[in-house]
Amino acid sequence: MADLEIGITVPDQMTETQSMKRTLIAEIGPHLGQEVRLSGWMHTIRRLGKFAFLLLRDASGVGQIIVDSKEQLAILAELQDESVLEVVGTVVAQSNAPGGFEIHKPTIRLISAVKDVAPFPINKATLNANIDTFLDNAAFGLRHPQKKAVFTISAAAMAGFRKHLNDQGFTEVTTPKIVASATESGANVFKLDYFGRNAYLAQSPQFYKQMMVGIFERIFEVAPVFRAEPHSTTRHLNEYVSLDVEFGFIEDHRTVMKLLSVLMRAMVDHVMNHCKAEVALLDIKAPAMPAEFPTIYFPEALELVYKLHGDDCRDEPDLSPQHERWLCEWALKEYQSEFLFVTGYPSSKRPFYTHPNPADLRYTNGFDLLFRGTELVTGGQRLHLYADYVKALTDRQLPLEPFSGYLDAFRYGMPPHGGFAIGLERFVMLLLNYQNLRETTLFPRDLNRLTP
Amino acid sequence: MADLEIGITVPDQMTETQSMKRTLIAEIGPHLGQEVRLSGWMHTIRRLGKFAFLLLRDASGVGQIIVDSKEQLAILAELQDESVLEVVGTVVAQSNAPGGFEIHKPTIRLISAVKDVAPFPINKATLNANIDTFLDNAAFGLRHPQKKAVFTISAAAMAGFRKHLNDQGFTEVTTPKIVASATESGANVFKLDYFGRNAYLAQSPQFYKQMMVGIFERIFEVAPVFRAEPHSTTRHLNEYVSLDVEFGFIEDHRTVMKLLSVLMRAMVDHVMNHCKAEVALLDIKAPAMPAEFPTIYFPEALELVYKLHGDDCRDEPDLSPQHERWLCEWALKEYQSEFLFVTGYPSSKRPFYTHPNPADLRYTNGFDLLFRGTELVTGGQRLHLYADYVKALTDRQLPLEPFSGYLDAFRYGMPPHGGFAIGLERFVMLLLNYQNLRETTLFPRDLNRLTP
Repeated sequence: MADLEIGITVPDQMTETQSMKRTLIAEIGPHLGQEVRLSGWMHTIRRLGKFAFLLLRDASGVGQIIVDSKEQLAILAELQDESVLEVVGTVVAQSNAPGGFEIHKPTIRLISAVKDVAPFPINKATLNANIDTFLDNAAFGLRHPQKKAVFTISAAAMAGFRKHLNDQGFTEVTTPKIVASATESGANVFKLDYFGRNAYLAQSPQFYKQMMVGIFERIFEVAPVFRAEPHSTTRHLNEYVSLDVEFGFIEDHRTVMKLLSVLMRAMVDHVMNHCKAEVALLDIKAPAMPAEFPTIYFPEALELVYKLHGDDCRDEPDLSPQHERWLCEWALKEYQSEFLFVTGYPSSKRPFYTHPNPADLRYTNGFDLLFRGTELVTGGQRLHLYADYVKALTDRQLPLEPFSGYLDAFRYGMPPHGGFAIGLERFVMLLLNYQNLRETTLFPRDLNRLTP
Repeated sequence: MADLEIGITVPDQMTETQSMKRTLIAEIGPHLGQEVRLSGWMHTIRRLGKFAFLLLRDASGVGQIIVDSKEQLAILAELQDESVLEVVGTVVAQSNAPGGFEIHKPTIRLISAVKDVAPFPINKATLNANIDTFLDNAAFGLRHPQKKAVFTISAAAMAGFRKHLNDQGFTEVTTPKIVASATESGANVFKLDYFGRNAYLAQSPQFYKQMMVGIFERIFEVAPVFRAEPHSTTRHLNEYVSLDVEFGFIEDHRTVMKLLSVLMRAMVDHVMNHCKAEVALLDIKAPAMPAEFPTIYFPEALELVYKLHGDDCRDEPDLSPQHERWLCEWALKEYQSEFLFVTGYPSSKRPFYTHPNPADLRYTNGFDLLFRGTELVTGGQRLHLYADYVKALTDRQLPLEPFSGYLDAFRYGMPPHGGFAIGLERFVMLLLNYQNLRETTLFPRDLNRLTP
């Protein structure tokens, strides 16, 4: 298979210079003493009269170019940062330059001139714009190497997720995001006009992924989900990427938890091993992960919160964010783990398809995985018998009809199964010890933000 | 990393039988003479009084079980097809059985009993339900091995797409699907209520993928797109998966076409090499693909249609489906290629961001890739200079303000770039020589269909 050359040249414009293959800045070392052709953005320039230090940035990194001819300086004279340039010059060793090399005797070609002054600098080690200014100027601000690194890591997290599951015999599926009825309840769904009918944006692929267990046994999906929750917090957005997993022939929720813990480790390892430069740049600390993640049963978690912190929440049906933080502190201290499973959430707080705990019907085989003080994953064992679905919907006074296409899966035989959903942006946020999902989402959507 | 065992057993229910590890049906051969535990669906059963041939189906295939004990036959007596069973029995060689082995002396455990008769049979070699009956019962019908195979191939096509692009230095991104304004025009967008404001579902990630070229140079996205086109054809759906690519520092659209042809071959090869069983089952013929795909310039394509078929369409601004079929016949005959590039589509038919052909401004550097008679990919070189965008929008009497977050990318320096979008379901449809996208979409969305 032919290798793709970057920058093919139109024959009638061809010159010696332009026909030279482009070299990425990170790869100039092996060309020491030779002429190379670089392309990229003017990251910054220090003009010192008769010469200038030009820092050129491409996808691979930043390189230094010494410009000392009048003619070449003139090309750069009126340009603002971020102008796009092509530079042909000779690679020289220079221990003070980024990467240990710099370019001498450059011939510069202007590709795109920038005339506007940047809204904020992106050529300092740390980006100092406030979050709203940054997001308003995302197309520009995301060029900052630290910002870019966040999304290189996000891509690696997705890749690690896929690789691990493919290796375990899972099949990737794509299910519809426009649906006829709200996935789990009538609340918090975006409504849209579908050729004169009402339709909704899927809150999750829950029903579809369960249906697919009947076809593939083991499936996953990576896709956007939509939540019309009208609150505005640092931990919620109205659109995010959900990493969904579902599989059959489990014993119970513990089979699911076992797969999830191994997957979580695989995703972290994939990021740490495939993004070494980004991990160093962002100073990411690998989480403490024992071979088995500690697990606490929901009512015991409430008891523990009471015992350790005096907060008598033992009648509560859910954990508060503060409870989650306390439990994670405890797990780190007692088990040297930054991950903690909480199992057995009460039935009242879990959707109708959640399998009850056979030993105590007040509780379920639903779990959360907490990571560094915050809920990262929700999952569990699902009901798998048709009669149980009919009963669960009836008990909740929900009609059967809107669910008929889904219920067919159970009518025609389904094995015990379960799964979970990981929020991609939340995984990256917690891995990076960031405080706001808006820092790990390219173009966040919230109550106030629909652009860019 | 610990291997996940399928089917961990709850300790208090553990018996000798249940603690045995599950074997997939396709993998029983190496266990010849041994006892194995299988789990799956009752694909079909032939009851012959004192014994029965049970075909059990799991994700890996179908296996035959000889049931000849009264006790075991009683378990199966009232069951309909698709009941979920666990079978423990001994592997025996049997050349007439699927895979060359069968199971003797089974002990059967009923997991999920099916009492309803199937809406149509899925245990015949070919599925004979009409498309609407099939789609109404998708959760059931997709279990047919031929239907399942289609989506195994779809997953492999996505995997091939990702693998090739990752190997070429592309980064995967995820961009928002809820947007503040229509991507390319006001028409054919789904409108939704976003906390009291109007918002829209993205018709494509076009603006975002171009913006990302400024950050990563080379990016791709695999995500749903939404088209509110009110027509109902076999070749259009209102939601589909778009495989989007965009990259910078190109010479012109030909750099993009070169990458696309190599990618197309990589995707086809990935499917053919990773889905051998499915390729055989569906009798898929690898497309004729010369090392270079033939290319025809748009006005020449119209001339050719006139010359070969007498259809004087030389003043038309676009190709009709019939024209596309004729051109593909010609390319197959003249170049032994089932792929054909058409370049230079007229400016009037291409969006404002399309780069004109510098040599003839009536035409563009936009192209389509036709495959087996149908348009599969649309792509091209984009404008990259800010001033060109201002002019293009002004010429089309479009306001600048709604595009400001996008235009910022060009204001702050963008290289020549281009890209394309491949419809995943359409790629699979054409590869399989199917006639309807509804056959290669798990849960299609069209004018009339919103469920399941």
